[in-house]
Amino acid sequence: MNKPSGSVAVLSGGVGGAKLVLGLSRVLSDGQLTVIANTGDDFEHLGLAISPDLDTLTYTLAGEVNTETGWGLRDESWRFMEALAQLGGETWFRLGDRDLATHVERTRRLAAGERLTEITRDFCRRLGVATRILPMSDQAVRTRVSTDRGPLDFQHYFVREQAAPEVIGLDYVGASDSSPSDEVLEVLRKADLSAIIIAPSNPYLSIDPILAIPAIKEAIRGTNAPVVAVSPIVHGIAIKGPTAKIMSELGLTASADNIARHYDELLDGFILDSTDGNMVAEIETSALKVTSCDTIMRSLEDKIRVANATLEFADSLSR
Amino acid sequence: MNKPSGSVAVLSGGVGGAKLVLGLSRVLSDGQLTVIANTGDDFEHLGLAISPDLDTLTYTLAGEVNTETGWGLRDESWRFMEALAQLGGETWFRLGDRDLATHVERTRRLAAGERLTEITRDFCRRLGVATRILPMSDQAVRTRVSTDRGPLDFQHYFVREQAAPEVIGLDYVGASDSSPSDEVLEVLRKADLSAIIIAPSNPYLSIDPILAIPAIKEAIRGTNAPVVAVSPIVHGIAIKGPTAKIMSELGLTASADNIARHYDELLDGFILDSTDGNMVAEIETSALKVTSCDTIMRSLEDKIRVANATLEFADSLSR
Repeated sequence: MNKPSGSVAVLSGGVGGAKLVLGLSRVLSDGQLTVIANTGDDFEHLGLAISPDLDTLTYTLAGEVNTETGWGLRDESWRFMEALAQLGGETWFRLGDRDLATHVERTRRLAAGERLTEITRDFCRRLGVATRILPMSDQAVRTRVSTDRGPLDFQHYFVREQAAPEVIGLDYVGASDSSPSDEVLEVLRKADLSAIIIAPSNPYLSIDPILAIPAIKEAIRGTNAPVVAVSPIVHGIAIKGPTAKIMSELGLTASADNIARHYDELLDGFILDSTDGNMVAEIETSALKVTSCDTIMRSLEDKIRVANATLEFADSLSR
Repeated sequence: MNKPSGSVAVLSGGVGGAKLVLGLSRVLSDGQLTVIANTGDDFEHLGLAISPDLDTLTYTLAGEVNTETGWGLRDESWRFMEALAQLGGETWFRLGDRDLATHVERTRRLAAGERLTEITRDFCRRLGVATRILPMSDQAVRTRVSTDRGPLDFQHYFVREQAAPEVIGLDYVGASDSSPSDEVLEVLRKADLSAIIIAPSNPYLSIDPILAIPAIKEAIRGTNAPVVAVSPIVHGIAIKGPTAKIMSELGLTASADNIARHYDELLDGFILDSTDGNMVAEIETSALKVTSCDTIMRSLEDKIRVANATLEFADSLSR
């Protein structure tokens, strides 16, 4: 198999993206892979700094994720939550007893002046995660959802309201004035960069907040490495989460071709699911190569298979 | 039995004082008893506002206290702590999974502008505690311990260093500029006040921080109600904690008479343990009546017995 020999960057949200990231981490050597993670979902809750996508990625790569939900820790307990309910605290965002340590310690270190990038690196080290996970920025960028019930902070929309309100639009508050960390820029500008992969995450909720940071989009536009996205829409259905629902609410048909169109000029390659193979010719242009494979990732073998397919495809596109 | 018919205020620290408070709560009717609790032990840890004595009192009266330790919750688990250790967090101050809800929710409400007095009242209501527990102040007063190893914040001295350093002196930082809450002053100035009881808590670490608030000391000096202290020293030994050790380090013999002398002109009555009965005549003056009883409180019956003895003694002193 022809895989990139240089470094690989992947843009990812939480659960869906973490599957491909896990596959990539098993295929590439330590130090070769860097994840640039969405922090538009981050929020302060109960006075704690919560970074859902960073944690899902970290827990997944540490082998500690709850495999039933795809987020949170396995072997979790909920005694804090029960006691909080007794005291009348807010319980719509579930924080497990073990998971809570991550939020308390992150909050403490942020308050002490550490950067989120450094804290995440240290957590990874302590949990035995060799893959580098970088928050997209150390500055606050917050996804705000305009809905038929008014504007909602992301987690209020996504968790408290269970993505039920109709989405009218999305804002990435703070993005246009924000900068990526030096680490993110360095990765995207690396001379040996072999591929930039956009994971099969929700484009609107997980990838667009990353791309909304001007210097990140500019770096991706300026790279010589092939930029490849994996479709999160399979045969009109989102594998995970409300992608299809949101697309419909935004007046778009939930289909792989609309995902390709969404990323548009950023992409050199696009991978869709075999069941959407009929769209390959339709989407492909002289500037955008398209391929198909079985993109459903249930087992670890699936994840490794999709990772290999993605890397080989990227390698075939390298200039 | 002659018990006070009016309201009763008790100054208390944590574990030791909470025993007498529990007894008093079973003897007096709801609304008759108010606890004025030491908050000189309060500190911020892991970004959380921790109030050890308030919590010990609340948990004790709620029947939720860990009866083996006298503090913390019964039926507690430590999964947060284990996860925190894995992340390299500070673990010298043990926070149980259930207990943590109290600190997180208190911290959140303080940040939202609620007073500690209001938060404590609400926690008591939710945990079914009918006795009123008032923090001595809504302002920060912090016990600082001067030791042979330098100055230490109270919990650093008491928990992290396990009260091992030699005590040279004590400061109640912020006390002289602080005010009690309106609720505390109202209780101490009540027309029907029948007794002010100083619980058998550590005088230096638990009661002096309360008395260091000028308006509290003044209110106690000015009251017509009898002021009665119960000795925490029994036959030269502190029932709980480092009282005897501290007295020795401060150049005092750890004996009941030195406790009486410590509170000096504030007291109308002093209760020492039967084993120290020989000191009664020695300590008693025209201004200070002294009595003895079995002050060891193991069972609930013990606590009720000492509570009754204290109330009867106070009643006998009422002017």
